[in-house]
Amino acid sequence: MEIKFIKREKLKEKPLGNLGFGKYQTDYLLYRDYKDGKWEDPIIAPFENFSYNPSMYVLHYAQETFEGMKAYRTNEGKVLLFRPLENAKRFMRSNERMCMPVIPAEEFLICVESLVKIEKNWIPSEKNSSLYIRPFMYATDIGLGVKASKTYRFVIICSPSSEYYKFEPTRIYVEDYYVRAVKGGTGEAKCGGNYAASIIAAENAQKKGFSQVLWLDGVERKYVEEVGTMNVMFKIAGKIVTAPLDGSILPGITRDSCLKILKSFGYEIEERKLSIQELIEASKKGILEEAWGTGTAAVITPIGELYYQGFTMKINNFEVGEVTKKLFEHLKSIQFGEFKYLDWSYEVK
Amino acid sequence: MEIKFIKREKLKEKPLGNLGFGKYQTDYLLYRDYKDGKWEDPIIAPFENFSYNPSMYVLHYAQETFEGMKAYRTNEGKVLLFRPLENAKRFMRSNERMCMPVIPAEEFLICVESLVKIEKNWIPSEKNSSLYIRPFMYATDIGLGVKASKTYRFVIICSPSSEYYKFEPTRIYVEDYYVRAVKGGTGEAKCGGNYAASIIAAENAQKKGFSQVLWLDGVERKYVEEVGTMNVMFKIAGKIVTAPLDGSILPGITRDSCLKILKSFGYEIEERKLSIQELIEASKKGILEEAWGTGTAAVITPIGELYYQGFTMKINNFEVGEVTKKLFEHLKSIQFGEFKYLDWSYEVK
Repeated sequence: MEIKFIKREKLKEKPLGNLGFGKYQTDYLLYRDYKDGKWEDPIIAPFENFSYNPSMYVLHYAQETFEGMKAYRTNEGKVLLFRPLENAKRFMRSNERMCMPVIPAEEFLICVESLVKIEKNWIPSEKNSSLYIRPFMYATDIGLGVKASKTYRFVIICSPSSEYYKFEPTRIYVEDYYVRAVKGGTGEAKCGGNYAASIIAAENAQKKGFSQVLWLDGVERKYVEEVGTMNVMFKIAGKIVTAPLDGSILPGITRDSCLKILKSFGYEIEERKLSIQELIEASKKGILEEAWGTGTAAVITPIGELYYQGFTMKINNFEVGEVTKKLFEHLKSIQFGEFKYLDWSYEVK
Repeated sequence: MEIKFIKREKLKEKPLGNLGFGKYQTDYLLYRDYKDGKWEDPIIAPFENFSYNPSMYVLHYAQETFEGMKAYRTNEGKVLLFRPLENAKRFMRSNERMCMPVIPAEEFLICVESLVKIEKNWIPSEKNSSLYIRPFMYATDIGLGVKASKTYRFVIICSPSSEYYKFEPTRIYVEDYYVRAVKGGTGEAKCGGNYAASIIAAENAQKKGFSQVLWLDGVERKYVEEVGTMNVMFKIAGKIVTAPLDGSILPGITRDSCLKILKSFGYEIEERKLSIQELIEASKKGILEEAWGTGTAAVITPIGELYYQGFTMKINNFEVGEVTKKLFEHLKSIQFGEFKYLDWSYEVK
């Protein structure tokens, strides 16, 4: 694999002020086409529009996958990625599930690193800001028969971004009608269809004054799965409880990191089925102590309230809990290189 | 709504021989953009590539829906659509589920009819061939936050097509691992994500020598849902049995048409839950008499064999059954205008 580079004539102006999330695009992108059963060499090219035939397969049958990563600037000006190999491996698993060709983890990493190196001046230095990295792949065959496409495009784009949410307690609506995923479906894969399916519930919840939904399992509508597009954790009577990775839940890298950090803090972790009824009981007994969502974009989102079928569970008096805060600060300090933990930080040199 | 027309300088050569399915593209397409909360006027333009920003929402979160329809040429040279209002209404329902803007059924019909009128010379006159019509819509916002897009493009493309499958018995693998849809999910909507999720099971089945899979329900993995991308019907001891439209099944227009025709033939219809165990018992007793799939692309697909966990159910000696054949012929004769039935045929003048 050899990466080609096409230089642009003039660099863009960097944006000032609140960057938002995924709003601005950097000077370059990387793309790599798959055809005749193999990957061509990647090309780093000026960020410009692509051209497509309206019969392009992805527009009809949604054969598409993605990843989300961030590049952080440390106080000393170093550039760090956070556990990028985990993204590379999950991308492989997502593509297998969706019948799409796999990019070896090592090549994926080289692609990400090469683009970030070129775009390093786009990594914001404001507190809690970072360069969001979006690797994605989609089917590019021309035609309408339903089958796996034979051609694909892999792309990486970058976007300088501020915090996704403010770090403050959110109100969450427990969804009892719509379902995000079911075992045997695509819930474990990071594919577009999961997100498209989830939009209506989030919009309905927002109309009612909630910021996200808590998903229940698709079989019994009973067990807690995820919150919005994040994994979710609870502190109940001192223990940390989260849903197990049993086939319908996205194996979040932030989820895994949080569990490892919490273990190192000495907390007992329970990865197990947790019913909404158990949460209600815990709330009534006063032992539902904290709750938060975990994800790459938002990092940690504190949950201050859960609403389920007429019953409101206030959590920690609608204040950010101690563990939630400690976890957020600790995770950020690792991501921004203030604290070295295992081999989680990967320096782009 | 006023449709603009951009004429192309030179028309394409029409293809000869086997047309395949969705392979060839006609001279024109129709597109219509949604922005600032409303639909702009549709444009019929030469079929050419579109240009897109790699951040386009649909490539990341699969907010996309589609329909499938056909235009038929009668022996007298008339052009017929088959129950197009049903497609228009289903498209509205799909878009509501996916949080996308709705096109009023009447405007949808005018768009389809206007394009078919211009492309009428592309409707093949070979037996069982037709002009496949693909209306679809996708999210075009630029950005990476997960929410409903605010801009969309609606497109109609046409493709002269031969039969999707040969009308002969197929071998079907009963899928017991992967799941197509679950109630509360998107199974009722004609959205890309359902199709992307289904590919792996179809590819695995094909590797084992089957042509499609039979999907079981996502909750109990017990009840028959659909076959491949079609609805499915069984003749058991003289009665016609098919899965009810209970939230996880696509409400097929061919399905509905078949049920109405079969009723008019005098058959008793049962829309009810049908377990795979009941099918096995019926097969053992010799009363599983016929089985077939129904859909716009393939019309009727005879099923000659079902394979479930080591047990093979041969159906009607792997020959096309009497009802299957009669249904296929009758449906085609209505679609091609040889037989008028209710108001199902819509003439494009």
